Amino acid sequence: MRDPLRVTTLGEALVVMDPLSKGPLRHVGTFEKHLGGAEFNVAVGLSRLGHAVGWAGGLGDDEFGEEILAFARGERVDVSRAILDPDAPTGLYFKEWRALGQLRVHYYRAGSAASRMRFDGLDVEYLLSGEILHLTGITAALSDSCHGLISDLISAANERGVTVSFDLNVRHQLLKGRDPREVLGPLAARADLLFLSEDESGLLFGGGEPEHVRKARRDIRAATVVVHGAEGAFAVEEEGIFEMPAYSVSVVDTVGAGDAFVAGFLSGRLRGWSTGECLDLANACGACAVTVPGDLKGLPTEEEAFALRRGLGAQDAGR
Amino acid sequence: MRDPLRVTTLGEALVVMDPLSKGPLRHVGTFEKHLGGAEFNVAVGLSRLGHAVGWAGGLGDDEFGEEILAFARGERVDVSRAILDPDAPTGLYFKEWRALGQLRVHYYRAGSAASRMRFDGLDVEYLLSGEILHLTGITAALSDSCHGLISDLISAANERGVTVSFDLNVRHQLLKGRDPREVLGPLAARADLLFLSEDESGLLFGGGEPEHVRKARRDIRAATVVVHGAEGAFAVEEEGIFEMPAYSVSVVDTVGAGDAFVAGFLSGRLRGWSTGECLDLANACGACAVTVPGDLKGLPTEEEAFALRRGLGAQDAGR
Amino acid sequence: MRDPLRVTTLGEALVVMDPLSKGPLRHVGTFEKHLGGAEFNVAVGLSRLGHAVGWAGGLGDDEFGEEILAFARGERVDVSRAILDPDAPTGLYFKEWRALGQLRVHYYRAGSAASRMRFDGLDVEYLLSGEILHLTGITAALSDSCHGLISDLISAANERGVTVSFDLNVRHQLLKGRDPREVLGPLAARADLLFLSEDESGLLFGGGEPEHVRKARRDIRAATVVVHGAEGAFAVEEEGIFEMPAYSVSVVDTVGAGDAFVAGFLSGRLRGWSTGECLDLANACGACAVTVPGDLKGLPTEEEAFALRRGLGAQDAGR
Amino acid sequence: MRDPLRVTTLGEALVVMDPLSKGPLRHVGTFEKHLGGAEFNVAVGLSRLGHAVGWAGGLGDDEFGEEILAFARGERVDVSRAILDPDAPTGLYFKEWRALGQLRVHYYRAGSAASRMRFDGLDVEYLLSGEILHLTGITAALSDSCHGLISDLISAANERGVTVSFDLNVRHQLLKGRDPREVLGPLAARADLLFLSEDESGLLFGGGEPEHVRKARRDIRAATVVVHGAEGAFAVEEEGIFEMPAYSVSVVDTVGAGDAFVAGFLSGRLRGWSTGECLDLANACGACAVTVPGDLKGLPTEEEAFALRRGLGAQDAGR
Amino acid sequence: MRDPLRVTTLGEALVVMDPLSKGPLRHVGTFEKHLGGAEFNVAVGLSRLGHAVGWAGGLGDDEFGEEILAFARGERVDVSRAILDPDAPTGLYFKEWRALGQLRVHYYRAGSAASRMRFDGLDVEYLLSGEILHLTGITAALSDSCHGLISDLISAANERGVTVSFDLNVRHQLLKGRDPREVLGPLAARADLLFLSEDESGLLFGGGEPEHVRKARRDIRAATVVVHGAEGAFAVEEEGIFEMPAYSVSVVDTVGAGDAFVAGFLSGRLRGWSTGECLDLANACGACAVTVPGDLKGLPTEEEAFALRRGLGAQDAGR
Amino acid sequence: MRDPLRVTTLGEALVVMDPLSKGPLRHVGTFEKHLGGAEFNVAVGLSRLGHAVGWAGGLGDDEFGEEILAFARGERVDVSRAILDPDAPTGLYFKEWRALGQLRVHYYRAGSAASRMRFDGLDVEYLLSGEILHLTGITAALSDSCHGLISDLISAANERGVTVSFDLNVRHQLLKGRDPREVLGPLAARADLLFLSEDESGLLFGGGEPEHVRKARRDIRAATVVVHGAEGAFAVEEEGIFEMPAYSVSVVDTVGAGDAFVAGFLSGRLRGWSTGECLDLANACGACAVTVPGDLKGLPTEEEAFALRRGLGAQDAGR
Repeated sequence: MRDPLRVTTLGEALVVMDPLSKGPLRHVGTFEKHLGGAEFNVAVGLSRLGHAVGWAGGLGDDEFGEEILAFARGERVDVSRAILDPDAPTGLYFKEWRALGQLRVHYYRAGSAASRMRFDGLDVEYLLSGEILHLTGITAALSDSCHGLISDLISAANERGVTVSFDLNVRHQLLKGRDPREVLGPLAARADLLFLSEDESGLLFGGGEPEHVRKARRDIRAATVVVHGAEGAFAVEEEGIFEMPAYSVSVVDTVGAGDAFVAGFLSGRLRGWSTGECLDLANACGACAVTVPGDLKGLPTEEEAFALRRGLGAQDAGR
Repeated sequence: MRDPLRVTTLGEALVVMDPLSKGPLRHVGTFEKHLGGAEFNVAVGLSRLGHAVGWAGGLGDDEFGEEILAFARGERVDVSRAILDPDAPTGLYFKEWRALGQLRVHYYRAGSAASRMRFDGLDVEYLLSGEILHLTGITAALSDSCHGLISDLISAANERGVTVSFDLNVRHQLLKGRDPREVLGPLAARADLLFLSEDESGLLFGGGEPEHVRKARRDIRAATVVVHGAEGAFAVEEEGIFEMPAYSVSVVDTVGAGDAFVAGFLSGRLRGWSTGECLDLANACGACAVTVPGDLKGLPTEEEAFALRRGLGAQDAGR
Repeated sequence: MRDPLRVTTLGEALVVMDPLSKGPLRHVGTFEKHLGGAEFNVAVGLSRLGHAVGWAGGLGDDEFGEEILAFARGERVDVSRAILDPDAPTGLYFKEWRALGQLRVHYYRAGSAASRMRFDGLDVEYLLSGEILHLTGITAALSDSCHGLISDLISAANERGVTVSFDLNVRHQLLKGRDPREVLGPLAARADLLFLSEDESGLLFGGGEPEHVRKARRDIRAATVVVHGAEGAFAVEEEGIFEMPAYSVSVVDTVGAGDAFVAGFLSGRLRGWSTGECLDLANACGACAVTVPGDLKGLPTEEEAFALRRGLGAQDAGR
Repeated sequence: MRDPLRVTTLGEALVVMDPLSKGPLRHVGTFEKHLGGAEFNVAVGLSRLGHAVGWAGGLGDDEFGEEILAFARGERVDVSRAILDPDAPTGLYFKEWRALGQLRVHYYRAGSAASRMRFDGLDVEYLLSGEILHLTGITAALSDSCHGLISDLISAANERGVTVSFDLNVRHQLLKGRDPREVLGPLAARADLLFLSEDESGLLFGGGEPEHVRKARRDIRAATVVVHGAEGAFAVEEEGIFEMPAYSVSVVDTVGAGDAFVAGFLSGRLRGWSTGECLDLANACGACAVTVPGDLKGLPTEEEAFALRRGLGAQDAGR
Repeated sequence: MRDPLRVTTLGEALVVMDPLSKGPLRHVGTFEKHLGGAEFNVAVGLSRLGHAVGWAGGLGDDEFGEEILAFARGERVDVSRAILDPDAPTGLYFKEWRALGQLRVHYYRAGSAASRMRFDGLDVEYLLSGEILHLTGITAALSDSCHGLISDLISAANERGVTVSFDLNVRHQLLKGRDPREVLGPLAARADLLFLSEDESGLLFGGGEPEHVRKARRDIRAATVVVHGAEGAFAVEEEGIFEMPAYSVSVVDTVGAGDAFVAGFLSGRLRGWSTGECLDLANACGACAVTVPGDLKGLPTEEEAFALRRGLGAQDAGR
Repeated sequence: MRDPLRVTTLGEALVVMDPLSKGPLRHVGTFEKHLGGAEFNVAVGLSRLGHAVGWAGGLGDDEFGEEILAFARGERVDVSRAILDPDAPTGLYFKEWRALGQLRVHYYRAGSAASRMRFDGLDVEYLLSGEILHLTGITAALSDSCHGLISDLISAANERGVTVSFDLNVRHQLLKGRDPREVLGPLAARADLLFLSEDESGLLFGGGEPEHVRKARRDIRAATVVVHGAEGAFAVEEEGIFEMPAYSVSVVDTVGAGDAFVAGFLSGRLRGWSTGECLDLANACGACAVTVPGDLKGLPTEEEAFALRRGLGAQDAGR
């Protein structure tokens, strides 16, 4: 394992059941098993880009939990602080491709091992041992104990001076009617580095344009707010607004694209790059991710992400 | 079962063998089994849109016949008048995706249970018990006895005042060199509601433009003639010509699109909608159908068709 | 739908994820989706044997719930009293084939729609409208509300004079350490017709031999106690002990065998057969079920079960 | 192509749709495409054993017909006299594995290209150009014109002195209630070499024991009558009765075993072997065939068949 | 087999392992086996277009070698001069679809049977018996003995007056750092008909424009140099420069497109067509090939290639 | 990673292409990718049984090499000393299931990265840092440099007092006609712990009975010689002969059984168990391995192996 850890993250890693054919799930007979989970994706993404990263989270003490650990070790992500819960299963979700290409997800994560995590059960020292602690609004929406855990972790990190990276990641199916502004807003307000989709920016700040973010940023802690959309991304900082257009690629599966984007941005930060360069690497990682099916398969290596940035092309380059 | 029936239809339901890879069939090793058949598709489409519908037709007294019945019951289509023939198999066809994306079908429906249907064997009372009786030129092309059956059914419906909906559906492989104008023209001329593709309008009326149809309509019974193409659809009635552009979607499989269109239009009629609104729902249903592989899987529910009409979009709407 | 209903049952119908390869689940990449659930299996089994049967139970208001309803309608099981829960998913489980052919199941049914069923939400009139009400210990183990529901239903049936058929079906993963004798014993004691495996007989009555059951039967309500094992089955009644050897078949998948057995026995009862004949039909149904993979696929039709009883054989009988 | 031809055969080659899972076809979602047909199997079997062989028969002028021709050419079977019919499809059948391991087949060969063959359309010179002409009762059961064709061909071969090999191959689904003794008996009576299963011997000769055959042989032309069963095979000739026990192997799929047996026996004949040796090679070929799924895949090469006869064994012989 | 041979070719035919899912190979669990190899593709392409063609090359004396021979015989390619090597395996390669749609290939052809071919082992008379001998730079890059073999064959053909068709086909993975200009340039300079991609033209002639080729052609033997790119193709001859735009089709898999192009051009030559017509048929063949996955499946028949040239279209043309 | 290492091993890890259907490879269309390699299997087996183990060996610097490393890390095998060769591919082999259940393997390991390993490139300190160094005759048969490497490693271990465990593992396809007694005998003679199959014992010692081994052991270094066969295993030591019968299980795939056996025996040694107990654990591990397809999937955890030894059974134990 590379060390010392530079980023730690905590969240739910899940088994993903991917339908082998399009259309309503009732007509799908065969599924492929993959792995996913927002923070887990970010951890794998950072590791592929060459950084020492640790992931913690609750898993069932079952085959799926073991599989996630083995996969993570294979990807050189430190999972020494994963928590195996003998009384609850590993989280799970099904993807469904409806007519018109619309994605629906069906969660089996209520009562999962991760949803039962508590601040008391964490190795906080470990989680604060890197330069960046990456968290998301998904964990905060899993359960009350998880919400408390995220809140307490942010406080601890704020106190210790560890950079809190927070991806809002609103999931209405988990919020079950609760207002994301109330549930997640106060957490986002205490992050040092905040990631939002355009829609989420609209939700939180009243609009997805740089100007909306610039105004809103005054009221929150974040030194950097990053907003990403299909056309590109921008970051708002004290120093100004940085924009970077998206790479034009053929989209196959957008799940995991945001996580790839975050991994790319954080990687730039760890390299000490400028915010513009960070955005560009983030865009490149997001672009690689959407060209390949599955939440994790498209997360690029450093070599692949850099190749895209250099403007690689010919299909037979590897022949 | 919902009742009373509002639409009845009669035709051949088939097993569809769908190649799991593109290219000449000789190179395809694996096939998925699906179900289809023009009138059957319309029945399922209408049921998904919320209407009480009954399908009748000949099936082999075999596994495939039982499967079609079970599927239809699952879809809440009344199949109480299906005819199980112990001496002939359920119809079958293979799809083939040739170079350049061209679809070929290979029929195994000569001598099928449906091709042996006779007017004598039908429960005519049942078939005339709804508001609309939907028929197509496919059944009329299956065999002589089927042609007679369609002709006699139309007469009976005309007499009883049940609306005859007729989709020309020219299939050259079934016509085996016979002129569709001669074989199907006289049947189409006695329908109350006539559905044509642009090509079929050209064949029957000398052109696929509204003007061609307007002129030709004088010589036939149909109060409404609907012509659908890739760009949109129009209807010609006494009151005038109604046009509606197609929805722009990403096409995956066009088989069944016409049947989805018909189901949408008939659904509009049953709702008492204007012809323009009927065309729009028809377009929406056709659009949903082509975005999903398989003849039947993409037939939308009311919810899905309406969502498209409202202009739904974001890929992650269901997350 | 055939009517009037002769058997009603209530329980959890589930989606079953069946691994396409043997070995630890972490190494399995592809799964086939099937359906199952003890009471659901019994309902389908009875319908295939020709009886009018109704199944009730909680389902998620989701694709899987719809699929279960469509499948049941296709199988001619009345599901008019199924309860769609908008706030909880349809139950789910994974099968796993470990080394040495050992089956493990991984449940995702905590918090499922079925586990949230309450006696208040049921149409008790409907459930008591047949001759037999079939229940199992699985439902009673799902949750406290489900345990209460089963207890109350048995009381209502006892009062009304409807025969209560009860299959103990101990599931340690659902009991989570609770003693099945305490949780399920009092329910079993109030059934009219009790089904046990040999192991369960040992657990409840101190042994799996006819003599153990004969003694224990004095203290319970059941007029008939049926015990089934790999070698055969026996029934203990006031009139005596009836034994019937198992059919010798090649075992592929034992899941669902007990449910097929129960369906066969109940079918015999509905036909007014002697207890010995009931056992024989039960054995035949169980034998058919284990020769085919999947919980439901092997449930025989009357024709198939009778053929086995007549001693059918030659592999090419159907050529 | 090896030449000159030593065996010619004529019959229907078919596409076989093989279910990828066991159980009733209605529950099977995926099928593998294979090829088969009794005489075609014999031709391929003989070619693998090293003999020059020609197959003729009717095929649709379609993808499946082309595939059969390409496969045969690949197997070095001469197909120069195959007849492509532009107006009828290539024959097809589905396999189904019912409960208890029972095989059912579902034919789509009514009206197939092969069923439309007529004696007039054949190249009789070609068919009589080898030492042996192999025919079966299947072709004779396909249609009236096919029955006439077989009868006329046998007459021509009898006259010319070409050995007629005839495999009774009773197929009740094709006979549709006709008595095989009446339809096929007179043909079998004119063969020089007659192959029967034990059941068929019972049907034709009143029993499957050597003694039954010995008596019956007096009334027919055949110099050699071969009867094969699961336990072994025997041949009855003027010189006496020759018996040979079957090889003990693990049976996977018995379809095609009889054809492999016939190919082995004919191969022995072409090598000039004694009847006992012919039976042994026939048994070896049949044994190889049943250990592999599919009608054709298990047909052994000379090397494989001989290895079995030498008593090969260790599983890792090829490592 | 059609004869006499009009084209002969020599090269490596390989087994192709095609991943069933996109993304890095480490995440791919299932592969489909196909066949390929540049010269082999050309041979199959020419045969489908109706020409008598013979392919020679080294194959392992193993299952894959036998499969390649059977496939070729099925496609009516003469393989009587294929060389089965008992001491080396048939060549093999894996395809990999990386992020961004980039193709990588992984060769297992070092030490393959083909790489061990020597001029001494060839039937030179056979290879020079047609009008055209087609060779490629791939064979020349396989090994030293193969390079010598190609050089000697070209000399023999030049001497005998047999047209040498040479496709440069630079494969960096086989050249392992050697300069293609040095390794392949002298061979290309002795061809009569030279095929280049635009990139290869740049490499060899300093640019991919007609003008570059016109100048360079003075120093080489080739009467015709053909350069093909995504937009179209051009040929440079003494008489001038001929250009032909590509057909616009939906690209699925570009592997084998160049070989289809070559087959089309050579087919035009064999038909005695003008250079412009040859280019157009070549473009049509290349277009068909890229619309279907796999190296060989999309190679068109004459009927398909001509249909594209006539401007065929409607998706349901074959219904 | 657990530490300190107790066992180290060195060998070739390979990609295994497993046919998804039985029969000659030419008829197999789809393959599953797995991993294997004798020493790699032993390493994974030991890790699953709870021991700290390190594997070293040559891998291509390619996707397959990366996959093997990731898998091993996931299994907690230390691969820090694996050698990535940029100029040669990772080894590969195909399995083939011939008629009669016979396994053939097709190697693509000539010129592989592992075959190019040299003693000079190894970290000998690392390899001698555990209590046991496990080697096999496979590596010694790969190439001359590998043979030298094994010889030198044994010498170094003998000198240092590290126990050399050696599994003869004769592979005729790698020996290519060389006499295993000459190539492998001298290496086996210097091992401290020697594993042989019955056949190998016959080859090396003139017989597979304990008596043969007892006599032969006098001339070699090994304190313990273990011989395993289908019926059981025995060990010969100074103290006597220990025998232990095999567990009776249903065999699915024997590949990897020997490696599982070795892992079990070594695990017993590391636990300080008696030779009889070691044999029993070895038998249990071998039994688990053969009940699951694939080289590695059936390697048991400590829990599974111990359960078998306790005599576990009921199929539904995990429900």
